Amino acid sequence: MDDPLVIAGEKFASRLIMGTGGAPSLLGLETALLESGTELTTVALRRVQTGTEGSIWDLLQRNRIRALPNTAGCFTASEAVLTAKLGREACETNWVKLEVVADDISLLPDPVELISAARTLVNDGFTVLPYTNDDPITARKLADVGCAAVMPLGAPIGTGLGVLNPRNIAAIVADSSVPVILDAGIGTASDAALAMELGCDGVLLATAVTRAADPVRMARSMRRAVQAGRDAYLAGRIPRREDALASSPADGRANLDLAL
Amino acid sequence: MDDPLVIAGEKFASRLIMGTGGAPSLLGLETALLESGTELTTVALRRVQTGTEGSIWDLLQRNRIRALPNTAGCFTASEAVLTAKLGREACETNWVKLEVVADDISLLPDPVELISAARTLVNDGFTVLPYTNDDPITARKLADVGCAAVMPLGAPIGTGLGVLNPRNIAAIVADSSVPVILDAGIGTASDAALAMELGCDGVLLATAVTRAADPVRMARSMRRAVQAGRDAYLAGRIPRREDALASSPADGRANLDLAL
Amino acid sequence: MDDPLVIAGEKFASRLIMGTGGAPSLLGLETALLESGTELTTVALRRVQTGTEGSIWDLLQRNRIRALPNTAGCFTASEAVLTAKLGREACETNWVKLEVVADDISLLPDPVELISAARTLVNDGFTVLPYTNDDPITARKLADVGCAAVMPLGAPIGTGLGVLNPRNIAAIVADSSVPVILDAGIGTASDAALAMELGCDGVLLATAVTRAADPVRMARSMRRAVQAGRDAYLAGRIPRREDALASSPADGRANLDLAL
Amino acid sequence: MDDPLVIAGEKFASRLIMGTGGAPSLLGLETALLESGTELTTVALRRVQTGTEGSIWDLLQRNRIRALPNTAGCFTASEAVLTAKLGREACETNWVKLEVVADDISLLPDPVELISAARTLVNDGFTVLPYTNDDPITARKLADVGCAAVMPLGAPIGTGLGVLNPRNIAAIVADSSVPVILDAGIGTASDAALAMELGCDGVLLATAVTRAADPVRMARSMRRAVQAGRDAYLAGRIPRREDALASSPADGRANLDLAL
Repeated sequence: MDDPLVIAGEKFASRLIMGTGGAPSLLGLETALLESGTELTTVALRRVQTGTEGSIWDLLQRNRIRALPNTAGCFTASEAVLTAKLGREACETNWVKLEVVADDISLLPDPVELISAARTLVNDGFTVLPYTNDDPITARKLADVGCAAVMPLGAPIGTGLGVLNPRNIAAIVADSSVPVILDAGIGTASDAALAMELGCDGVLLATAVTRAADPVRMARSMRRAVQAGRDAYLAGRIPRREDALASSPADGRANLDLAL
Repeated sequence: MDDPLVIAGEKFASRLIMGTGGAPSLLGLETALLESGTELTTVALRRVQTGTEGSIWDLLQRNRIRALPNTAGCFTASEAVLTAKLGREACETNWVKLEVVADDISLLPDPVELISAARTLVNDGFTVLPYTNDDPITARKLADVGCAAVMPLGAPIGTGLGVLNPRNIAAIVADSSVPVILDAGIGTASDAALAMELGCDGVLLATAVTRAADPVRMARSMRRAVQAGRDAYLAGRIPRREDALASSPADGRANLDLAL
Repeated sequence: MDDPLVIAGEKFASRLIMGTGGAPSLLGLETALLESGTELTTVALRRVQTGTEGSIWDLLQRNRIRALPNTAGCFTASEAVLTAKLGREACETNWVKLEVVADDISLLPDPVELISAARTLVNDGFTVLPYTNDDPITARKLADVGCAAVMPLGAPIGTGLGVLNPRNIAAIVADSSVPVILDAGIGTASDAALAMELGCDGVLLATAVTRAADPVRMARSMRRAVQAGRDAYLAGRIPRREDALASSPADGRANLDLAL
Repeated sequence: MDDPLVIAGEKFASRLIMGTGGAPSLLGLETALLESGTELTTVALRRVQTGTEGSIWDLLQRNRIRALPNTAGCFTASEAVLTAKLGREACETNWVKLEVVADDISLLPDPVELISAARTLVNDGFTVLPYTNDDPITARKLADVGCAAVMPLGAPIGTGLGVLNPRNIAAIVADSSVPVILDAGIGTASDAALAMELGCDGVLLATAVTRAADPVRMARSMRRAVQAGRDAYLAGRIPRREDALASSPADGRANLDLAL
């Protein structure tokens, strides 16, 4: 596997993590997930019905996509910890996407409760992937308490506004000892590519695909956008210049001609 | 061929048009061009030496990539028209990427000379693809005199600043009766994706690939970025929202569960 | 007069040029104009009724604000030239704000007709202030044919989108031998300040004031914003830094303490 | 006093709060502070030497500018609380600008320590003005523990990058029950105006003035920029439009003419 995403020692060929929220039907969701190439998909715990035929759980099992239970809808550390523990039993995984939001309007993470819940869950043996704001210090604290990755938002959930503060994401990447996954805010392909170009190790998105007019095509778009952004990051882009630079200067032409 | 780029009746599976400027070696250029998937590549006329073994011309012929001669280095309409005619004989094509720049510092198009040259060349039977600024009215005039496409800049040549004025590009697309190719300014993958999301029919770039630290990897990145941007455009992205929107609202969850 | 705006040898203490369009009443317009501190105000020629008591013309005369007739509504060079000549007779001034727009939807300047009209009017003895797009080459051509200033748009008329492409405005300023007035697109105070910080010599706006909920307060805001932007430009702002810099470093503190 | 800034019941005619860091000399600082019109100025506690003739403290006393001691250089809640208490004694004020930064490279606030220190100081009778990141939830928590204002950053200290995430600042304003002061990141006049247009109640800056090439002129610029931004906020700006809107439509002209 070339250039895999590695989280807590597990390797993933795809750097696109999908969510399932917003999907109008299971069938459409399945096709979109397959087209996206994702190998890791978050599921709201209350939606998961393990063992039920025809469930999202079954869909993921059938397609060998790893399920990542999340604690969506939790407002306090204790609520999130309890939900995570129930998820661990139900899904037989100690991985959890940790969400502790401050209210159900902004859906923004509560940094204090989040760090507290992360500490508790790490100490209880969980592999914790926290959804956080784009503050570099909060991200650092989450890594410091032992999270396996940090997942800052690009913009509030469901807004499709992209990466509102690229410098913060770049600062998190520069500072982070664990993988950085851009989570929330992605609206379209260029947003996902940009996140990867900023050095993120992966991108997590849901509604940008599930609520697009054509989810399957958008899933394909996101798969390629994440690959393109990763390649662009590794390829070493040209510097930004304030002044124009001819791609074919006269002397450059001459030199190249001589070389033929 | 699914969703081809059509210029003057010719179909191209790839929407990425490459330039050759800035390439340090012919061998590296060839690998990058192949990785980019391009089917149309611009060449500065003075650099083309048709019939010379080992030339760029030979490279393109061998790989069945169509050569698009350009008039780089021309400052007046008459100079550009003369150069285009020489190119037509040398390359046996009546297609031309028309460049008429105002000076060799800014490398910005001279709109008056450009429109004049375009008119002359169209009347002389050329298929004219003009490199223009991002002014919607200049683009309209170029289409009106019969250009086969319009190719506005995202930013000045070689700057890698991306699309500085997305609204102008979107306005050109909305208004245009011919294909719109974003030409110049692309620095990285997200720039190319954004151009396509704005509705451009294709992207033309050179130094973003040829001068990247790893041109081949960047070529692959750009191929996918253009595809991703095109798909995102066609897939119908989610609207931008100022307020958050839960991807997994409680009632949505309930409905989906019932549907299983 | 400290740091005056000088156009064609005439000095203005205020760098804010106002338009009158969009004003719901003459009374409100007068108060707003006075609050703005403007000394130069554009008027659509068809609106001017010189000699009529209670007209805009009278208002400007009474308040010793210089009237700058414009050629709004003209689509061709010949139409604009004719209108300018009528304005010269009616208003007894050879100054003209030259507008030649491509259509009445986009209201964008037609660069070819604009340059042509400017040349004709300059040759006929007019002091020409052309409303142009933000293309540096078009601005250069307008200066080259003898315009007394160039007035690039920040954004399309009436959009209030501010300065969409600051690099183009800065490039025009860097290149220009005549004053540069940012004309069109201003929505709020920070837009006007930014235009001045980019090096513009003045700002021209109308609807941002006349259609604000409180035009008089917005006029005051714009007056100060233009002054603030001019001062910021002259004061030499701190450089943008990617990394934080303590304003009170330990050694700095020590040094300052010693100095007391 | 028209439209004063009110913090903890105290009224200030000026909405510009100044810092003193970065000033090369006391004399220059005094002139700049006077030109800025500020009535409230932060001072690093270690720099304040109350009673010493020729000190910053003396300078502020002499000019009747209220001193706001800050806890710059503190990395933990306990350190900040201790420093604040020392400051209270030294400066005979229970107002404190609370800074608890995570490290001396990023100078970013530590949200957990900051909230903790704020709670302690509020309970101890301080009027707490905390320097915080731009996360709306952290700002809300600071208001909830009883802070008299919240002071989010526009960008990291000393960067001069302006307001990197205007939506976050607007969200803090929309949510806040206490005054919002934009603190840190301001580089030039348009940044300050923008902060006020977003609804901030005031702006706090230091190096943008003290390290400008001409601090006195920049101080004047900032005074006007803050006033302009405040007025623009209150005046009700025109909406942003995607399409052009003539300021002088034909029918509008007719109507206005009739009205004369």
